[in-house]
Amino acid sequence: MRILRISEVLRGDAALGSTVTVQGWVRTRRDSKAGMSFVAVHDGSCFATLQVVAKPDLANYADEVAHLTTGCSVSVTGTVVESKGKGQAVELQATEVSVLGWVEDPDTYPAAAKQHTFEYLREIAHLRPRTNTFGAVTRVRHCLAMAVHRFFDSRGFFWIHTPIITANDAEGAGAMFRVSTLDLANLPRTPDGAVDHSQDFFGREAHLTVSGQLNVETYCMAMSKVYTFGPTFRAENSNTARHLAEFWMVEPEIAFADLAADADLAEDFLKYLFRAVLDERADDLAFFAERIDPGCIERLETFVESSFERMDYTDAIEALQRSGKSFEFPVSWGADLQSEHERYLTEELVGRPVVVMNYPREIKAFYMRANDDGRTVAAMDVLAPGIGEIIGGSQREERLDVLDARLDEMGLNKDDYWWYRDLRRYGTVPHAGFGLGFERTIVYATGMANIRDVIPFPRTPRNADF
Amino acid sequence: MRILRISEVLRGDAALGSTVTVQGWVRTRRDSKAGMSFVAVHDGSCFATLQVVAKPDLANYADEVAHLTTGCSVSVTGTVVESKGKGQAVELQATEVSVLGWVEDPDTYPAAAKQHTFEYLREIAHLRPRTNTFGAVTRVRHCLAMAVHRFFDSRGFFWIHTPIITANDAEGAGAMFRVSTLDLANLPRTPDGAVDHSQDFFGREAHLTVSGQLNVETYCMAMSKVYTFGPTFRAENSNTARHLAEFWMVEPEIAFADLAADADLAEDFLKYLFRAVLDERADDLAFFAERIDPGCIERLETFVESSFERMDYTDAIEALQRSGKSFEFPVSWGADLQSEHERYLTEELVGRPVVVMNYPREIKAFYMRANDDGRTVAAMDVLAPGIGEIIGGSQREERLDVLDARLDEMGLNKDDYWWYRDLRRYGTVPHAGFGLGFERTIVYATGMANIRDVIPFPRTPRNADF
Repeated sequence: MRILRISEVLRGDAALGSTVTVQGWVRTRRDSKAGMSFVAVHDGSCFATLQVVAKPDLANYADEVAHLTTGCSVSVTGTVVESKGKGQAVELQATEVSVLGWVEDPDTYPAAAKQHTFEYLREIAHLRPRTNTFGAVTRVRHCLAMAVHRFFDSRGFFWIHTPIITANDAEGAGAMFRVSTLDLANLPRTPDGAVDHSQDFFGREAHLTVSGQLNVETYCMAMSKVYTFGPTFRAENSNTARHLAEFWMVEPEIAFADLAADADLAEDFLKYLFRAVLDERADDLAFFAERIDPGCIERLETFVESSFERMDYTDAIEALQRSGKSFEFPVSWGADLQSEHERYLTEELVGRPVVVMNYPREIKAFYMRANDDGRTVAAMDVLAPGIGEIIGGSQREERLDVLDARLDEMGLNKDDYWWYRDLRRYGTVPHAGFGLGFERTIVYATGMANIRDVIPFPRTPRNADF
Repeated sequence: MRILRISEVLRGDAALGSTVTVQGWVRTRRDSKAGMSFVAVHDGSCFATLQVVAKPDLANYADEVAHLTTGCSVSVTGTVVESKGKGQAVELQATEVSVLGWVEDPDTYPAAAKQHTFEYLREIAHLRPRTNTFGAVTRVRHCLAMAVHRFFDSRGFFWIHTPIITANDAEGAGAMFRVSTLDLANLPRTPDGAVDHSQDFFGREAHLTVSGQLNVETYCMAMSKVYTFGPTFRAENSNTARHLAEFWMVEPEIAFADLAADADLAEDFLKYLFRAVLDERADDLAFFAERIDPGCIERLETFVESSFERMDYTDAIEALQRSGKSFEFPVSWGADLQSEHERYLTEELVGRPVVVMNYPREIKAFYMRANDDGRTVAAMDVLAPGIGEIIGGSQREERLDVLDARLDEMGLNKDDYWWYRDLRRYGTVPHAGFGLGFERTIVYATGMANIRDVIPFPRTPRNADF
């Protein structure tokens, strides 16, 4: 018995006339007037289903095959034949159809073959991967994830697993989740009545990481080229279509590099990712273009063929002021760019991705490298047409005296950064890096409107275990 | 200026006589009687250093080059020449040596070029990647991680990111970390005085995952072949060389598969991983064989050439009882195998990896498939010479009625598993999977004795932020 994935059958791995077995789930069954059934079977391997032609001379035709409904699992053996139907080159003339699993009460099957709202599908997250949309999202997500690793591995980067549980707040910024084994019903107390964190698992307060950047810099200063790709967390109660409490982030860090090298890496990286999706998931992209976002393929094709514009923040501010546009948020040197400003720059002014570089130091983090002008730091944002900021990065401050002055200025405790400062004391080198929100990248590639629809397990009141 | 990684120079990417630049850190400097210096430079790209020959006619020879110490960062441009020294084919005749970063007070440099204990190096985790041992560990870890993805991707599996924060305890087993944003100093209370978890971030109690298995089964039942590779957590206060609170786990799950297919996948997978290390990291393995564990290369070579023995648990018990060995833990049908038993089976009895299959149901988890004998389940452990259990897996119970009876028997609340049960109600299929502790795999490949030395960031009292 030669078992093939449906993607293999459809791409022609089995010769016409050969016998193969496929295993999967029924998407639809259609009966012809001639008394045979056409069963569309999917197994997750590609967007398309395989059409199984089941004739009434099958032993279990009347008792079983004619009763198949969406969601039933089957194992089908048959002959690969040319398809007369359109949209597929081959189909399977069944010689045996085994029903592995029925659908209990087909009328109430939660993922029946009809249009469901995405809101509803989040409530049945355990079944939504069987739908066209979420099968496609899963494959695109996988394709992008593999491309992330392939890009870095082929360029001599090492994947570093930075800590998920941390006692360190990467930027003094994001709201964090506490991690603890203390018994809430019976909290240990210090003599003065405060919660005694020394009795917690790690002997002090611990949280979920908001970024692996500071940690991964330690590896950058030894291995030269490293990256993280792992879960990060923000305890911000923003229940919007753009925020997640748990998401994956990619953070490369390169030694012997300045901001220009960082921007080049970001450009190469993003183009590589979207090139991979265009090359490897044309089937799923065609679906997204048809049902979700008509422009998504063209957007990616334009993207990978563009050369990114580099623009100083100061020049960007001037361009915005000269634009004659009336923005909701005022434009002035020293203020951060808002989404409307970013979109003007990349979509209207330049018409290509833009790397805005050298931001005012007052609006950026302590670890970004001070420029000689005294008022900007070597930070960058990559803006993409249709989405705005997609990457944020910077050259890091590698000079201990400058870093220390900045920590003091911002009221940060130097002792908390003893190991980070040590890196500047011992063989420091110029280095730079950036962060890419992985889910944002999937949103960009697919046009899916809600970021909770590109993660495998959306949290909902019903799906609290996810 | 042609910049190359040291690995590229050493493998001959630059022709003899050509000019290249390398950038890295000084491991050692040795001065010859003839008044020149030999500087060994590493950049993380491979185990070996590149020998830089610096002659006194360099402009900064006396002022800088002659003062280089371990840990200084340099950029060196020079001519690639044949090396007369042994152990290297080429060396770099420097025409320019730029010192990028000095070492402040070389006498107290924490990672000076001498033998340090691993305990000490855990306290300077930010600098230990610069040492021979931890550079090698980092490269082997990366090599294994890439091999994990390559193995599954090339076989049509999809990488699924299962939730880190969960409201679900995968096996009712492991001790878990609580995740919360409640203010410990001011806990919300219900009218009866209990902690009011409904006011927490997710509206109920949440923890860090101990396994992605149950979650990933939902994707297996749609995509057919899936795997997780991500961080998992155990809040067990076992401060041993074999336990970690945070570690990475690989969990494939295959549909249309039974326990025999699961064992085959485990065998193929492990051999693929170790084959990759042998092929790609021979330099680092040579170091581990020389300094850490003399048998490590031979162990891996034997492993990848072995065919794994399959053995029923019941037969394993009989073999142990017939062995004539006196074990610390008694051997009897129904008891779990202890490490000493596992090592006897794989090292003495069989001399190859062994897959022990079909364990007593009383000692196994609720989701494992009941065998027809009524007393065993389709569980397996893969035992490897030199380490014991390295993989644990099972065929999952795909029959709703059998699963329900088991949940009842174990006193588990069926409502908590509503979505897991749904999968058995709608197009259920036989499926199976296993878990591989990623750090255990690195321990096996390198012979490193303490599992905290194969993770990038060991937690110590001093390194609490890791």
